[in-house]
Amino acid sequence: MAVFTRFKSAVRWRYIPPCSVYRRRLDPGPLLRPAESVPERRVHHGGAESAAPRRRPFSRVTADDLVFFRGVLPGRVITDPDVLESCNVDWLKTVKGNSEVLLRPKTTDEVSQILRYCNARNLAVCPQGGNTGLVGGSVPVFDEIILSTALLNRVLAFDTISGILTCQAGCVLESLSEYADKQDFVMPLDLGAKGSCHIGGNVSTNAGGLRLLRYGSLRGTVLGLEVVLADGRVLNLLASLRKDNTGFDLKQLFIGSEGTLGVVTAVTILCPRKPRSINVAFLGCSSFQNLLKTFHMCRGMLGEILSAFEFLDASCMSLLENHLKLTNPISESPFYIVIETAGSNSAHDEEKLHNFLDKVMTSSLVTDGTVATEEAKIKALWSLRERVTEALRHDGYTYKYDISLPVEKIYDLVTDMKEHLGSRAKNVVGYGHVGDGNLHLNVISPTKDVGLLAAIEPYVYEWAARCRGSISAEHGLGLKKRNFIYYSKVHAGSQRHPQPLQDPAR
Amino acid sequence: MAVFTRFKSAVRWRYIPPCSVYRRRLDPGPLLRPAESVPERRVHHGGAESAAPRRRPFSRVTADDLVFFRGVLPGRVITDPDVLESCNVDWLKTVKGNSEVLLRPKTTDEVSQILRYCNARNLAVCPQGGNTGLVGGSVPVFDEIILSTALLNRVLAFDTISGILTCQAGCVLESLSEYADKQDFVMPLDLGAKGSCHIGGNVSTNAGGLRLLRYGSLRGTVLGLEVVLADGRVLNLLASLRKDNTGFDLKQLFIGSEGTLGVVTAVTILCPRKPRSINVAFLGCSSFQNLLKTFHMCRGMLGEILSAFEFLDASCMSLLENHLKLTNPISESPFYIVIETAGSNSAHDEEKLHNFLDKVMTSSLVTDGTVATEEAKIKALWSLRERVTEALRHDGYTYKYDISLPVEKIYDLVTDMKEHLGSRAKNVVGYGHVGDGNLHLNVISPTKDVGLLAAIEPYVYEWAARCRGSISAEHGLGLKKRNFIYYSKVHAGSQRHPQPLQDPAR
Repeated sequence: MAVFTRFKSAVRWRYIPPCSVYRRRLDPGPLLRPAESVPERRVHHGGAESAAPRRRPFSRVTADDLVFFRGVLPGRVITDPDVLESCNVDWLKTVKGNSEVLLRPKTTDEVSQILRYCNARNLAVCPQGGNTGLVGGSVPVFDEIILSTALLNRVLAFDTISGILTCQAGCVLESLSEYADKQDFVMPLDLGAKGSCHIGGNVSTNAGGLRLLRYGSLRGTVLGLEVVLADGRVLNLLASLRKDNTGFDLKQLFIGSEGTLGVVTAVTILCPRKPRSINVAFLGCSSFQNLLKTFHMCRGMLGEILSAFEFLDASCMSLLENHLKLTNPISESPFYIVIETAGSNSAHDEEKLHNFLDKVMTSSLVTDGTVATEEAKIKALWSLRERVTEALRHDGYTYKYDISLPVEKIYDLVTDMKEHLGSRAKNVVGYGHVGDGNLHLNVISPTKDVGLLAAIEPYVYEWAARCRGSISAEHGLGLKKRNFIYYSKVHAGSQRHPQPLQDPAR
Repeated sequence: MAVFTRFKSAVRWRYIPPCSVYRRRLDPGPLLRPAESVPERRVHHGGAESAAPRRRPFSRVTADDLVFFRGVLPGRVITDPDVLESCNVDWLKTVKGNSEVLLRPKTTDEVSQILRYCNARNLAVCPQGGNTGLVGGSVPVFDEIILSTALLNRVLAFDTISGILTCQAGCVLESLSEYADKQDFVMPLDLGAKGSCHIGGNVSTNAGGLRLLRYGSLRGTVLGLEVVLADGRVLNLLASLRKDNTGFDLKQLFIGSEGTLGVVTAVTILCPRKPRSINVAFLGCSSFQNLLKTFHMCRGMLGEILSAFEFLDASCMSLLENHLKLTNPISESPFYIVIETAGSNSAHDEEKLHNFLDKVMTSSLVTDGTVATEEAKIKALWSLRERVTEALRHDGYTYKYDISLPVEKIYDLVTDMKEHLGSRAKNVVGYGHVGDGNLHLNVISPTKDVGLLAAIEPYVYEWAARCRGSISAEHGLGLKKRNFIYYSKVHAGSQRHPQPLQDPAR
């Protein structure tokens, strides 16, 4: 049977200095692992220091296989090493495969024929979307055939009454956003990677991003999927209905399972109406406690127009200033907040925002701030949040963590990690999605440092597990995090249960 | 292995004239059935005219079993026939079981002990929430043990920053709404059945209701579940995080699967902040085309404050007037709309609503209307929509259908059904959730009429299938619809696919 490697498209491709390390696949373990069982082997960042996993006994691609593929996909079977190079390496340049064949199907039937053949021939396949993932899930580990969704890029239907869009899996998110915009709708998700990532990859990795606070997760907005299973069978779950309570909702199994259960070939998604007014505020806070109070007040006063509540710490701002020469538009603060509103009436939105800002400034929750209503200024403020990842890369080797925690604890992990690592780390910074309880924790070292890594892991995962957090909020498991799943999942049979806090509701 | 009958809690219990009919269980068929295969046996409304299914070879409850149950649940093993009577009959009084034992556990561990024992003893179990379902899924078919969630009614945790609520499965929805209200939050779902239905039943049936348009489905708002499997194992999927991308989202399998895969014992759900301002408008429309145009304009102009867009036709209004003596607050119209807004600023909300009403009145999309901002008047307007079901019961024997369709087609089915049935039906009426593309189609006959039923089914299901609709939008399958699932689901291997409408997005 063909085995899928993980499918990941969550971050925009940007040029990254090469630091490729050959990485190998681990044998899959049980999904739910008892918390006391510790894996013997781990894949570390870059993989070089980890025990080398084995290639499993899949067949090798032969000349006859290529003849078959060329019959199905005339002119779309790529063996040119130069073209293959970029598809074998992830955008972080931390993991690298050695595939010699890239297939570019245009239709579901072609995907089905390829997988049926590979299954019969015992050839391993790696589905690939925009190759923008952060966890080493979008590139081959050894010599798997790369199955690209890039030419599965047609919009299939759009209902201008309901806003329901059906498209092939390889549509680039930004193209879909532009398409929806012309119909007076927006896509319910938005990511820094939108210029490269594919909607099929977004769905396969259950991408989160900047609009989740407002429009919810893909589990609610994806209405249907078409998926090709490993043996080539096509599972048509494309019903484009808001409601359907007939039987098990099988499409949910494919959302966020990173291509391990099948290749998503088409997606039906519900698009919200386009807001007529957008405002962005950039604020300074003297403490994380005040930031949380600001968030609480913000949800109450901005209510239905709040579309994002993001934060970065002072270290992030220094990196933006030092490495990217961006200017802090307000006075220096320990914490910065980006708030976006999106609504249907600009006068109303501005009044709500004004009232909110007036209250948080007079109550000293916020120490300084600026607001943008014009597109260029909005983009400039957003770039202070969106370009942190880029700034980090200029500062050294970065160990990246994407942790989900109860919102009141998200910065405690950064504070604690700083203390725990002391001078071993060059820098420990935190930023992320306050509204979703999602921290991006980054530890920076001048160079790769096995000793530092050993001090971070499994410490960071144990910390998250103690708070009932998740070791991967939105990036997925890929190859890098898959051996740590047991920190976030409880195995069947556990009796762990929250204690009652009070009497019955009634 | 213990077999669960379906678990359904979607409509408030009200007194209904007795018309109990003994109903028996069908053998389960494959989930995905080829569209060309027609089942030989059907369960019709009331079941009397259907071929009688067989009781499967489960054990009978013995005195020893009762001793065991009394040991686990002291004082909570009910065998009094008078008490059992109401748990054996569904609220529509159309299906009736013959269980002789009702168990009322208070803890997950007790549920686990019961199921483990029943599994070992080969005793069938029927989980029951508020017993408010419409499809015959919440009561036993034969002599299954009834496992009630009524005493699993504790709130376990509430996070006042994030609005994340964790509670046991037997909490009544209205109690949770009152609890959340005190914390300045609301439940993300609201149903006519809220006074009786249990949150575990809501989740198990993926209940829709009146707020889905605004807050989305339970697939997005339910963050975690605790489930006891048929063999007594406890699956702890209770993580109360907005985001968690570590592995398969197994809880989704239990949402909407009506208790067939396990008994939900606890739920974690995300509550939105309580809106500060509510307005309701009741409008008249001269045609369904104008109603759809009104909906389109409404979504644009009310945008983020729109929380419900419901409709009823003139026949529904006549029934409300004739049977419940309600008064139509506006002039007679072929169609009536109920629009609710919920926002954080009453002045803004009223201005938006005023602008919208001004536009739809001057453009003649709406012919008459009234608006309520006070609670009593809001309730009075809502009752015109919520009490249609009650009015229908006074008009005769009602054949009920809950169909999901592309929104522009929802009333075509009513029009077509009227023509198709002609004088055979006393009345054919339509109402429902325009915002969700969900039609409640009701055909009324003076008495039960096998000939009329044969004219409705499978005609109505075929109609829905041709439009790629669903034969159950929010009521579930239960026993009544389970044999018709293949009208809504395509089996694996199908190549059915929407045709491309235009060129690639990019």
